[in-house]
Amino acid sequence: MNQKKIAIVGAGLCGSLMAVYFAKKGMRVDVFEYRKDLRLLDGSGGRSINMALSHRGIEALKKVDLFDRIKPHMIPMKGRFVHLQDGQTSFQPYGTQKDHVIYSISRKTLNEVLLDAAQEYASIHLHFEKKCTDYDVKTKKIMFEDQVSHQMLNKQYDYVFGTDGAFSKIRQAMMKTDRFNYSQDYIPQGYKELCIPAGKAGSFLMEKEVLHIWPRKKFMLIALPNTDGSFTVTLFLDFEGEPGFDDLTTKESVTAFLKREFPDAYNLMNNVEEQFFENPTSSLATIRCYPWNVENYALILGDAAHAVVPFFGQGMNASFEDVQLFFEQVQQHDLDVAIKTFSSLRKKDADAIATMALENFIEMRDSVSDPTYLQRRKIAQELERNDPERFKSRYTMVSFTSIPYAQVYQKGIENQKIIDEILANQNNSR
Amino acid sequence: MNQKKIAIVGAGLCGSLMAVYFAKKGMRVDVFEYRKDLRLLDGSGGRSINMALSHRGIEALKKVDLFDRIKPHMIPMKGRFVHLQDGQTSFQPYGTQKDHVIYSISRKTLNEVLLDAAQEYASIHLHFEKKCTDYDVKTKKIMFEDQVSHQMLNKQYDYVFGTDGAFSKIRQAMMKTDRFNYSQDYIPQGYKELCIPAGKAGSFLMEKEVLHIWPRKKFMLIALPNTDGSFTVTLFLDFEGEPGFDDLTTKESVTAFLKREFPDAYNLMNNVEEQFFENPTSSLATIRCYPWNVENYALILGDAAHAVVPFFGQGMNASFEDVQLFFEQVQQHDLDVAIKTFSSLRKKDADAIATMALENFIEMRDSVSDPTYLQRRKIAQELERNDPERFKSRYTMVSFTSIPYAQVYQKGIENQKIIDEILANQNNSR
Repeated sequence: MNQKKIAIVGAGLCGSLMAVYFAKKGMRVDVFEYRKDLRLLDGSGGRSINMALSHRGIEALKKVDLFDRIKPHMIPMKGRFVHLQDGQTSFQPYGTQKDHVIYSISRKTLNEVLLDAAQEYASIHLHFEKKCTDYDVKTKKIMFEDQVSHQMLNKQYDYVFGTDGAFSKIRQAMMKTDRFNYSQDYIPQGYKELCIPAGKAGSFLMEKEVLHIWPRKKFMLIALPNTDGSFTVTLFLDFEGEPGFDDLTTKESVTAFLKREFPDAYNLMNNVEEQFFENPTSSLATIRCYPWNVENYALILGDAAHAVVPFFGQGMNASFEDVQLFFEQVQQHDLDVAIKTFSSLRKKDADAIATMALENFIEMRDSVSDPTYLQRRKIAQELERNDPERFKSRYTMVSFTSIPYAQVYQKGIENQKIIDEILANQNNSR
Repeated sequence: MNQKKIAIVGAGLCGSLMAVYFAKKGMRVDVFEYRKDLRLLDGSGGRSINMALSHRGIEALKKVDLFDRIKPHMIPMKGRFVHLQDGQTSFQPYGTQKDHVIYSISRKTLNEVLLDAAQEYASIHLHFEKKCTDYDVKTKKIMFEDQVSHQMLNKQYDYVFGTDGAFSKIRQAMMKTDRFNYSQDYIPQGYKELCIPAGKAGSFLMEKEVLHIWPRKKFMLIALPNTDGSFTVTLFLDFEGEPGFDDLTTKESVTAFLKREFPDAYNLMNNVEEQFFENPTSSLATIRCYPWNVENYALILGDAAHAVVPFFGQGMNASFEDVQLFFEQVQQHDLDVAIKTFSSLRKKDADAIATMALENFIEMRDSVSDPTYLQRRKIAQELERNDPERFKSRYTMVSFTSIPYAQVYQKGIENQKIIDEILANQNNSR
């Protein structure tokens, strides 16, 4: 076994799964996390409360026998449940097969299960409240600030894996090296989380096994079910503009806006104006960079390497798939080769899901209520139902297969051409 | 007069010109520079040795009566002097009018003249060897490290202008604010400066009033004349690849490469292999960001806001034009409004010159020796000569007018269509 010292910086979803992958290979690893152990905390720690787990994430969990532990905490979502402004609703199934469902799961619960699993291995050492402040790519020293004593710790590792999220300190250190390509692009919209509480005895006040969307063209509301009967509601809205977060500064304006745009949701929420002013308005960015490694000893994965907007529900799934694919490289070659080659193998897929996530925002907030879109979607679903081996919709490929994202993107363009032709033929035969 | 405290961080070309603009308005300003006063130094301080000054830069200098001081140090360059591998040469004039020339000037001399000019104003206070290490956008405190005493200085200003170049610390501080868009994109090529010395009594060993290019499709050599009779030669070449800098690690390989590709230039250089290993290989990036301001009190300009690759010779000209345009806003409104609105007015132009600079690399290293390009160029020059009000080539618009870069980019696309049509008609009439 390799006696070299391995550090993972960030014990979120990606880092804690990665630790388990290392342990399964019999390798010792130190995991550093700047937050408190979230298993000891109430609340969600300020991150988005629930996630959509789908095929890619599930496969990565299965590889290290963790999926069965996650299962009890999931709620299937079989499709989109669309709420129009006039109160009309409609259901749009996500796929064409019975197992074409995605799963709502609490970020906190999922992270807890992963940390519990990590803690069962003697070879995994979890260090909480150690905030990484810098990494010296030359000496391989990682600087941490102990969040209790506020002492600085200086630790040297042979390998460092940065799974420290969109604001990664390991990536920031890499940025100081020459020829590191980087971009952060914010969208004009922000988001705010709200809540629809459970009904009596944990009952659900809306359709349970769906993802609710209130598409309003330039903005939207969505809601995902939680196991306690509540729904986490998220408003996506321009910062500036009318309507815009900057405009909603009084209780009256918030009430008027929510009542006008989302009357059915408004009626199900308690003290929504209070929630509106208590909860933060957060921004949304796409982060791209390259390369993800420093030679054969440092690598960033997940959001640290490729943060995406949340509209395809793939951020976590892509991160988990990173871990699985990285360890396939470790298996086929060795750790050094895997670190050196991973970003060149995976970069185009990260770029593709970033682009598709941006495109899906338009689909969710606008297209889902557009007759032309619905007609095209119907054709796609018929093609897929008739011959699922020959035709798969882009949504199906992203959410229910492991086809590399970059291939999915290309096939998605071909799909559109096929549907164009069918529509042209339909019009000609009229 | 405004008694508020103003700081400029960076006393390079952009910052020292900006200081003079403030002084002309009767405003007091502190200018901080991390380097020593370059007027006291030999050599170039590691930056590229000469620049191409053209219309936009000249206009900005004229506005504050500085152009006449620069003139004696300039060498006109009337066009490209192309050296093919077989020894053939050809001359391609830059424009169609007598004043369509760009000027080679030493970065150091130009900066010295600007610093001398700044020092003549009692209201400009120059502080050298003060390295900005951070800026607190909330408290408006700027942190400096004194490069002699290594003491930290903490200074508060009402207004801060970051003219601290591509690696701007003021921009880095802005990056910590929410919703700051940023990208840095390196090209695969690096550059290395070499030298063709003067001949006897300061004579020029090659054609003097031109920009020399040795286009070799994937790479190129260029040379600009200096007032002392020497030429600054720059090799632009892939880092990786064949040929590539990573491959040129022995004296023998360097000699073989230069002799094979640039035999005429090779014969004019002394100890070129020594120069090759002594001089650094530098990287080239495009930096884009937005917004350039923090509210009404901090602004970045020049390379700090929009570093471009050097292939259109516009980096410095765009920076100088920034300063001129910014003070037009100050004049029309006031300092606060100018800071708040400048980046929204100028951003599209910065993006356009960044794109055109990247495109011009292909033109310089490849197209200038391509018959189709030369045919199109001939048509463009005829159109421009016949009716310069109706048709201006893109090169002319960039280098010899003040037409905003974004408009130039659009007109350049229209130009190509016009030339396409003329070529199609020529072919039809055969």
